[in-house]
Amino acid sequence: MKLGEGVEAAIHCAATLAGVDGNSTMPAAALAECFGLSPSYLLKHLNMLTASGILESVPGPAGGYRLARPAERITLLDIVLAVEGREPAFRCGEIRQRGPAKLDASAYVKPCGINAAMLKAERAYRAALDEVRLSAIVADYVSEADPRSVAAGCAFVERHQRPQRSVQKVQPSKA
Amino acid sequence: MKLGEGVEAAIHCAATLAGVDGNSTMPAAALAECFGLSPSYLLKHLNMLTASGILESVPGPAGGYRLARPAERITLLDIVLAVEGREPAFRCGEIRQRGPAKLDASAYVKPCGINAAMLKAERAYRAALDEVRLSAIVADYVSEADPRSVAAGCAFVERHQRPQRSVQKVQPSKA
Repeated sequence: MKLGEGVEAAIHCAATLAGVDGNSTMPAAALAECFGLSPSYLLKHLNMLTASGILESVPGPAGGYRLARPAERITLLDIVLAVEGREPAFRCGEIRQRGPAKLDASAYVKPCGINAAMLKAERAYRAALDEVRLSAIVADYVSEADPRSVAAGCAFVERHQRPQRSVQKVQPSKA
Repeated sequence: MKLGEGVEAAIHCAATLAGVDGNSTMPAAALAECFGLSPSYLLKHLNMLTASGILESVPGPAGGYRLARPAERITLLDIVLAVEGREPAFRCGEIRQRGPAKLDASAYVKPCGINAAMLKAERAYRAALDEVRLSAIVADYVSEADPRSVAAGCAFVERHQRPQRSVQKVQPSKA
């Protein structure tokens, strides 16, 4: 089972954006710099988050990204599904219906038990991710991480956030 | 999040092998035929299961595969880990330690909270898979699936299983 590397970047960026003031934004370049990532690599994931309604973007040279809703209403599941897609990890190819013992479709009306068991486990995974709010990730970071790291993170956000007058939203591809 | 297609094949093959008599084996070619899979594709996964101690193989033209222990002692987690590897789905690249705000290593002694939350969810997933025994998959199939499908599956196993005198084990690559 594998998650793309983009999940880590997406969660860290969303947590960082939870720290900007009011409706300020941060440019993708600053977020990329913050985590030592290529801006073009990161932009793909920021646009996925925007397309899923987790982030919103303000266009133009003074624009950037911000959370589209409060961090209390964003869960790790929201972010994982935005980046990885909503398809189940286990993809049933219905191989039970192949081979020489194949019967007509009426013999396969009930779902395959293997698929059902795999999907049940995945529901447990998603439920666990859905319990973790982005606000809790940030709160834990502030209270648990090394204070020097918290101070450096806050200073970085302070330095790179850009106040916005409007609450203009645009499509992810225009950001 | 994605699981390889081999997981479906591996579980179906293990469930099929739970139906062979005594220490009989089934050749890889029969298992491939049963699910309409390429034998070379399937062999890779059968060898993973053998390397993980879920299957054992008997070499030679009259050989094949069988479960290495009773189906009651094989879980879906065993099979998924055998095929997908034991690494977590979420791989933390410690991107928190990159970028211009990077501090010395002493600031990152505590694990990243994002990684911890992702791993916790994965433990829930694995626990759910570990609750499902291969014997339960087979029992549910026998009691729930269309009787024609069960009869065809049993007839296929009956036709292709090969009685073995010894309990000889070999390395997966020799199978």
